[in-house]
Amino acid sequence: MIQLPQIDVQSDQPVYRQLYAGLKSSILAGQLGDGDRLPPTRDLAIQLGLNRATVSAAYALLEEDGLMSGQVGRGSFVQNKANPDAEISFATSRPSGELFPLDEFRDTAQEVLARHALQILQLGSPFGYGPLRSYLIEEAIAEGNFDPEQDDLLITSGCQQALDLIQKALIPRGSLVLAEEPVYPGLKNAFPGALTVDAGAAGIEAMLVTPSFQNPTGYTMNLAERESLVSGRKLLIEVDIYSRLRYFGSALPTVRSLGVRNSLLLRSFSKIAFPGLRVGWVIGNKAMVQRLATAKQWTDLHSDQLSQAIMLEFARTGRLERHLAKVLEAGRLRLTATLDSLAKVLPVGSSYTRPEGGMNLWVTLPRGCDSAVVLEKARREGVNYLPGRYFSLSAPFHESFRLSFAGLSPSSIAEGLRRLAPLFEEEALIASRYHDPVPALAMV
Amino acid sequence: MIQLPQIDVQSDQPVYRQLYAGLKSSILAGQLGDGDRLPPTRDLAIQLGLNRATVSAAYALLEEDGLMSGQVGRGSFVQNKANPDAEISFATSRPSGELFPLDEFRDTAQEVLARHALQILQLGSPFGYGPLRSYLIEEAIAEGNFDPEQDDLLITSGCQQALDLIQKALIPRGSLVLAEEPVYPGLKNAFPGALTVDAGAAGIEAMLVTPSFQNPTGYTMNLAERESLVSGRKLLIEVDIYSRLRYFGSALPTVRSLGVRNSLLLRSFSKIAFPGLRVGWVIGNKAMVQRLATAKQWTDLHSDQLSQAIMLEFARTGRLERHLAKVLEAGRLRLTATLDSLAKVLPVGSSYTRPEGGMNLWVTLPRGCDSAVVLEKARREGVNYLPGRYFSLSAPFHESFRLSFAGLSPSSIAEGLRRLAPLFEEEALIASRYHDPVPALAMV
Repeated sequence: MIQLPQIDVQSDQPVYRQLYAGLKSSILAGQLGDGDRLPPTRDLAIQLGLNRATVSAAYALLEEDGLMSGQVGRGSFVQNKANPDAEISFATSRPSGELFPLDEFRDTAQEVLARHALQILQLGSPFGYGPLRSYLIEEAIAEGNFDPEQDDLLITSGCQQALDLIQKALIPRGSLVLAEEPVYPGLKNAFPGALTVDAGAAGIEAMLVTPSFQNPTGYTMNLAERESLVSGRKLLIEVDIYSRLRYFGSALPTVRSLGVRNSLLLRSFSKIAFPGLRVGWVIGNKAMVQRLATAKQWTDLHSDQLSQAIMLEFARTGRLERHLAKVLEAGRLRLTATLDSLAKVLPVGSSYTRPEGGMNLWVTLPRGCDSAVVLEKARREGVNYLPGRYFSLSAPFHESFRLSFAGLSPSSIAEGLRRLAPLFEEEALIASRYHDPVPALAMV
Repeated sequence: MIQLPQIDVQSDQPVYRQLYAGLKSSILAGQLGDGDRLPPTRDLAIQLGLNRATVSAAYALLEEDGLMSGQVGRGSFVQNKANPDAEISFATSRPSGELFPLDEFRDTAQEVLARHALQILQLGSPFGYGPLRSYLIEEAIAEGNFDPEQDDLLITSGCQQALDLIQKALIPRGSLVLAEEPVYPGLKNAFPGALTVDAGAAGIEAMLVTPSFQNPTGYTMNLAERESLVSGRKLLIEVDIYSRLRYFGSALPTVRSLGVRNSLLLRSFSKIAFPGLRVGWVIGNKAMVQRLATAKQWTDLHSDQLSQAIMLEFARTGRLERHLAKVLEAGRLRLTATLDSLAKVLPVGSSYTRPEGGMNLWVTLPRGCDSAVVLEKARREGVNYLPGRYFSLSAPFHESFRLSFAGLSPSSIAEGLRRLAPLFEEEALIASRYHDPVPALAMV
């Protein structure tokens, strides 16, 4: 039975805030522990003589603080996991929240709402928020990715939605899309059953590439590889969401800017800034973008305009460039920490990619190892990653896994890999017992 | 040739703001008139010795003010349409921007960002922003629309996306959905080729109804009609986005709350508050909602979280209820103005629906009239609406059109219908010459 907070109905502070504050102190003081069940809203409302909505509002605030989680049909439970052994997760390809410039974001939101609230809140266009479109078009023209005579741009809810719309509007049912393997699951699931790695298959309608810092491998095409794509006749779908996250080496041009005719370029603010806002865009010729916009209209009318307007102001005022400079500095350190640790902790016979940017690299354990088996043990050690089979189209990738490093501090990266080291060793030992080594080729 | 604004590089004000301010005064002073072409950003940058991005930023601000419109491949043009004869549009089923409580919205955004910016900006869940989900679930439980043991809730990007996800995840290809006619085009296009009005057709998998203030007719099912739907075995898709906009009469329960087993309930903040934020949700049993959430993940990962967090705070603090009270008051006056004017301006032989709420009603001109022909003339008089054929599945609805009244003031409604009156008369006269009247039934 929990101690009920004191409620003062005369107070200036709304009752739900008082209730929230009371419960929060109980949790932080440890009177309510991690996993404790909170009373159902109805019961607590009766006990305190309050409206049920008031109790719900207090619970919702606790949930926002991450101090409570509501499970449908089971009730509400206290969460208080402020412990130093929190999971080190290499499982998500997302930016580091620590680096978010929250005050600058708040200022940006305030500036935008002071001037444009009415326009933002009213119904908008399937093509996206006009001023953001204009800004992105100018940027794309300057980079050689947009021909004002022929091209157009559609704002999407992140890059994932651009893929969904392409599949809906431009890929005829029953045709195939040639993809790179290993492949990000979001690509597989955006083109269900339509991806292939067989370049000679019949019915290939389009080619899906991520030329810079591919997910999951971090692989980047060199200039010659990019140029070789220019002459293709199939639709080229160029996913370009990581290229600005280059920590080392020199930037490379997009395939689109090299003069490819039949292509779509997909970009997003989700990797370089704020994934929670879901602002992405796609560039292509006018006819294709018109078809995508029609599909967009019947998919969700248009994307939320508040995030679009704030991202525009964040970019236009130079805040995005400043933020990106910090992200690149942090990324350099994180990538270096990852490569340094990997060199130490991997068993003989392992290999890994060495990207110059992005968020991910691809580790392959010695032959016969199973990264999914290691993962089960890793989780007990508080470490997480995505095993190779998630990224499979044709090959199983048992030995491989994706290591997403961008969201973790250098010390967490080192600690996480240190915890993994003995598990890798153990798995390599088991594998060496049960699998023959690859026979060496005869030297001739 | 335009007069170039003075730029002071020593000023505290950023250069792009100075350029914007200079151009804006030229437009407001009439030195740049409606339709004038602004120089390309490249040219103006050279003339002023500025970076091209600076000029783009200034143009984007003008576009946000509605003073400029950029047309890809054609350039940027001044827009200055502050004229009293602006179009009176009955064409869009959306709320009135005049009623938006902008200051309260700004306060809400600030409160939310002060506390939850980090969580909002980071990657979220396909199910939606947790605290908003909890809030909406509690609300739905209290209304009898949600059984905590069996049901779940998914946040969508407006009601339109819920339809898209249902089509993707729950309606097998080749099966049919029974719909009401006339039908909102967004429903037709969410289930392309799958809607039917023939209740006896083979392969009907689901039934799509809008029991309260249907779009476009404003029709509302009475309790008996709702109860008759409870026993159906097909999936019932209940679109419930207008029911809170009741200006007269008594509220009716949702079909879902009457005990239907196999149903989905679709709701949204877009009609009662801010359509530009695209926050909607769908309630159904856990298995169905899980399938919708999986489809959601591969459609756009999740919805923007900033709008969700702000809508939650807007609702929880009582601001939504206060806003809704004003919307209802305004809606009563607008609906009354519409019905009063229609009674005066329609030719003999016309008919129209008399809803007690919502945003739309349905007008049918005398037999033989063509609402699309009248519309062409109406546009020249500065009035707009959507003719009946947009809402067609099987019947052509030549004589009918949708009148969306909620976004217009009572005086605009009266003025718009006054302008239409002579056009209706003229069309009715032409129709009476070319079409035989319906033969009267013999009195027996």
